[in-house]
Amino acid sequence: MVYPPLQQLSVWKELKHAAQIIERPENHLKYLIHQKNRLQLFSRRGGGIFVDFSRQRINDEIIELLLELAAERNVRERFNRMMAGEKVNVTENRAALHTASRNLSNDPVWLDGKDVMPDIKAVRNKIKAFAESVRDGVITGSTGKPFRHIVVIGIGGSYLGTEFVSTALQEFSSNAISLFFLSNVDIHQFGRIVSHVEPEKTLWIVISKSYRTAETIANARQVSSYMTSMGLDPAKHTVTVTRKGGPGDDPRLPILNTFHMFDFIGGRYSVTSAVGALPLSLYLGYGNFERFLQGAEEMDLHAGTANNENNIPLLAALISIWNTCLLKYTSNAIIPYCEALRKLPAHVQQLYMESIGKQVLESGETLTAPSGTVIFGEPGTNAQHSFFQSAHQGNPFPIDFIGITSTRYPQFQQKTDGITNHQELWANLISQPEALAVGKDDSEPARCFAGNRPSSMILLDALSPENIGRLLSFYEAKTVYEGFIWGINPFDQFGVELGKELAVKIRREMADKNRDSKHAFDQCDAITRFYLETLFKGEL
Amino acid sequence: MVYPPLQQLSVWKELKHAAQIIERPENHLKYLIHQKNRLQLFSRRGGGIFVDFSRQRINDEIIELLLELAAERNVRERFNRMMAGEKVNVTENRAALHTASRNLSNDPVWLDGKDVMPDIKAVRNKIKAFAESVRDGVITGSTGKPFRHIVVIGIGGSYLGTEFVSTALQEFSSNAISLFFLSNVDIHQFGRIVSHVEPEKTLWIVISKSYRTAETIANARQVSSYMTSMGLDPAKHTVTVTRKGGPGDDPRLPILNTFHMFDFIGGRYSVTSAVGALPLSLYLGYGNFERFLQGAEEMDLHAGTANNENNIPLLAALISIWNTCLLKYTSNAIIPYCEALRKLPAHVQQLYMESIGKQVLESGETLTAPSGTVIFGEPGTNAQHSFFQSAHQGNPFPIDFIGITSTRYPQFQQKTDGITNHQELWANLISQPEALAVGKDDSEPARCFAGNRPSSMILLDALSPENIGRLLSFYEAKTVYEGFIWGINPFDQFGVELGKELAVKIRREMADKNRDSKHAFDQCDAITRFYLETLFKGEL
Repeated sequence: MVYPPLQQLSVWKELKHAAQIIERPENHLKYLIHQKNRLQLFSRRGGGIFVDFSRQRINDEIIELLLELAAERNVRERFNRMMAGEKVNVTENRAALHTASRNLSNDPVWLDGKDVMPDIKAVRNKIKAFAESVRDGVITGSTGKPFRHIVVIGIGGSYLGTEFVSTALQEFSSNAISLFFLSNVDIHQFGRIVSHVEPEKTLWIVISKSYRTAETIANARQVSSYMTSMGLDPAKHTVTVTRKGGPGDDPRLPILNTFHMFDFIGGRYSVTSAVGALPLSLYLGYGNFERFLQGAEEMDLHAGTANNENNIPLLAALISIWNTCLLKYTSNAIIPYCEALRKLPAHVQQLYMESIGKQVLESGETLTAPSGTVIFGEPGTNAQHSFFQSAHQGNPFPIDFIGITSTRYPQFQQKTDGITNHQELWANLISQPEALAVGKDDSEPARCFAGNRPSSMILLDALSPENIGRLLSFYEAKTVYEGFIWGINPFDQFGVELGKELAVKIRREMADKNRDSKHAFDQCDAITRFYLETLFKGEL
Repeated sequence: MVYPPLQQLSVWKELKHAAQIIERPENHLKYLIHQKNRLQLFSRRGGGIFVDFSRQRINDEIIELLLELAAERNVRERFNRMMAGEKVNVTENRAALHTASRNLSNDPVWLDGKDVMPDIKAVRNKIKAFAESVRDGVITGSTGKPFRHIVVIGIGGSYLGTEFVSTALQEFSSNAISLFFLSNVDIHQFGRIVSHVEPEKTLWIVISKSYRTAETIANARQVSSYMTSMGLDPAKHTVTVTRKGGPGDDPRLPILNTFHMFDFIGGRYSVTSAVGALPLSLYLGYGNFERFLQGAEEMDLHAGTANNENNIPLLAALISIWNTCLLKYTSNAIIPYCEALRKLPAHVQQLYMESIGKQVLESGETLTAPSGTVIFGEPGTNAQHSFFQSAHQGNPFPIDFIGITSTRYPQFQQKTDGITNHQELWANLISQPEALAVGKDDSEPARCFAGNRPSSMILLDALSPENIGRLLSFYEAKTVYEGFIWGINPFDQFGVELGKELAVKIRREMADKNRDSKHAFDQCDAITRFYLETLFKGEL
């Protein structure tokens, strides 16, 4: 089924009208929030989390229209078809089965007439066994010393999600094992990492589905050369996470082991697959990793089964569409009032912007204006002392606030002005959405606050593996739902191809120059030539 | 002198017309960049760096108009008046003398008839002597052990710049001293830090001009209580950076030493003052800190003296205004192709968004629409595998690319496909601006690239303290110039006040509840009450 552009729907016209009405002064958030039972009407519990939309610029009618839009786009049915293995990634003719990677049930998931679950479970079990052997010191480095440093060599979706989860759950790691990410091809990152790890105790995990990602392969080569220079056999210190039968799974490749990832899971949705499973099981233990999967699965089930009006990721997606397309906000901040969630914004930035920043509909029709919004964020309260000046008085942007009711450090109870630091954090978490919504008049213009600035609040009850799984799956499902509503494919990323193509030519010029210092870059345009010459000169 | 809104200037009308013309298909960047000597015409060297605007959507006429705008706003004269101590922070009736904090000359800087340089130099010398004594083990912790862990307790401008600089120059630190930032009041951050530092060897630096910043004071209290619980005298492990004569400079305060900051330097411009000087001198050595000051001073002099058409920060500011106000881009990415610069985007995010995200002109007149754009970014090439899908095919945003010609790790020369990793990094750095500018047609709509996406390139020749100073000062001067052109005050931040005000009430409710568990939150509105109850319940 082909979905027409949103603009052609009659409910869209009604939404545009509703957007005009909500812009009227009498519909300022400072009035809307006093609606009777506002919080009850616009907050939901589900999938183990709580989300409050009461400070969004919405009312009952708008939610009804948005739900009508969701019904018209058949989104929940499509979500379930996605979970059931249909090839929803239409431009690449692939399924998008990230949900299967945390399916802990005994139910099959059929793809092209084959149940994918046995393969998924086999990978999980292989990872469990490997991780336990490494953690128990049964599998060791080439000199017999236990592995104590895990370095993920991977970029984009091969590390951002794992970085988020491992940072969030650091307290669940044994301090004996440290985890590093060698993502960037910048040799600086490699140099820093090798100044921190002991090579004899280091396990390198090369993660690339194609095993052709330029940065990852260059880093893997650098590592191999380095380990050899240290008198160690790199093969005994390297494993791969890669496509079955691909170049990273070649039996002639000198590696310790390989773990498969599947074509039907894209990089930015791959944290619950082998991509996250291997490093997280090594770092946190497989048991904690499985708790994380349980949380993600719970949210998947909520996203697939809760009816539309109680479906948290779907409502979040609808409100995001409302904010972006109808109220014309162009960016969205994610502000976790929790240091442990500091890597969440970077993960969602990739997940969302790579999924939703598109120019074409699934049908191939070009959009009148490209889609997508900028996702950014820093933890609160830090952000309040940084860019929140702009949130309150500058060009406005909606905000996702995230709070955690309990703390993992309850032992620190020193009070200041009668309250603990955790309470101080919450005093701010409670104040900010209100200040943004309500604003304040003042006789001095510089001290006026226009208010009417929308935000949502997401609450978790603890920094547990389950909750991190729920949060991850919430943002994934929201993103997918948003793609479905737009009518764009949230699973492809053709936009990254052109830069790669151009790099091929430049790389060849560099290699020529490395071979022959007399090589002049006279086949290049003037600007490219200048930069190549500058690089080889090594100075400005 | 009061500057009218931009919209009232006749040159603005001409710029609006030029913006219409540049939108025409024949003025696509893929044509503009083939202008003869494009690179020479639109790139500049100055203040020790190189900046290339040739991939911005500009032409000779637009630059002329923008320079006319700069002349009309008197910006360079105002910049010099700022450097000379005039009270350019008009809403707070203060000078903005961050440039004086890196003035290494013997020239006086007069403020209210008094030369401020002797006080600034006295603080610098005091910091130099203190840092050297600590680094040499002359000043030790209370048990006689040398200080090996430095923890900055400060939030916003009290740490973001220092975090950027210390991360960029980590290779200049002696590995003997580690540096941490306790910024967030989230007890999680405190818990993590104390799990890493040895209390006997830890020096805590409390940074707050007013010594009333809620988060910083709560953290300082927590630390004091913690050190006492460890059997150590917190007074022997704590210094303050604070306003002279303020509560942080009270002789009765049990601290080791205090270093003054001045009213005439705002938080986000304070890295070169005692705020950065103390932690950076301890971490990098005073000599390296002074090299950093030299670079910042060099760029200040460039910004103040280079004529407008060769003035790099001024041109960058004019082009930012062009992109924001006339081409209507709503965000700006900063993408350093350098892992060591990974904290630059967060620093500039504060610097810029807190300075420029405003609703009023200096005159007090309210803007028709709030100003400011979102600054965000991650290092390249990582960003290419994250949100660059959106940069190439989604809703567009201008980008600052930053490259460094040399690497600090030249020893790692393993080549892949004939090139080193540093060259691979540059192959991408060279390709991306071109791909964004030029785009590509394709018969398949999903594989089309509209191009015409603007970017600048900033080059440094090395990761040296001087260059980091230049880069810091470049972004400061660009921000100030942008404020001057808008006619808004880039030095105040009234937008952060309302949230603070509301937090006071909520804090009181919490303290009441801590004292009396029967306290009901019945003075609060329904939403606030719900969140307070949820926090005290500790679960959802």
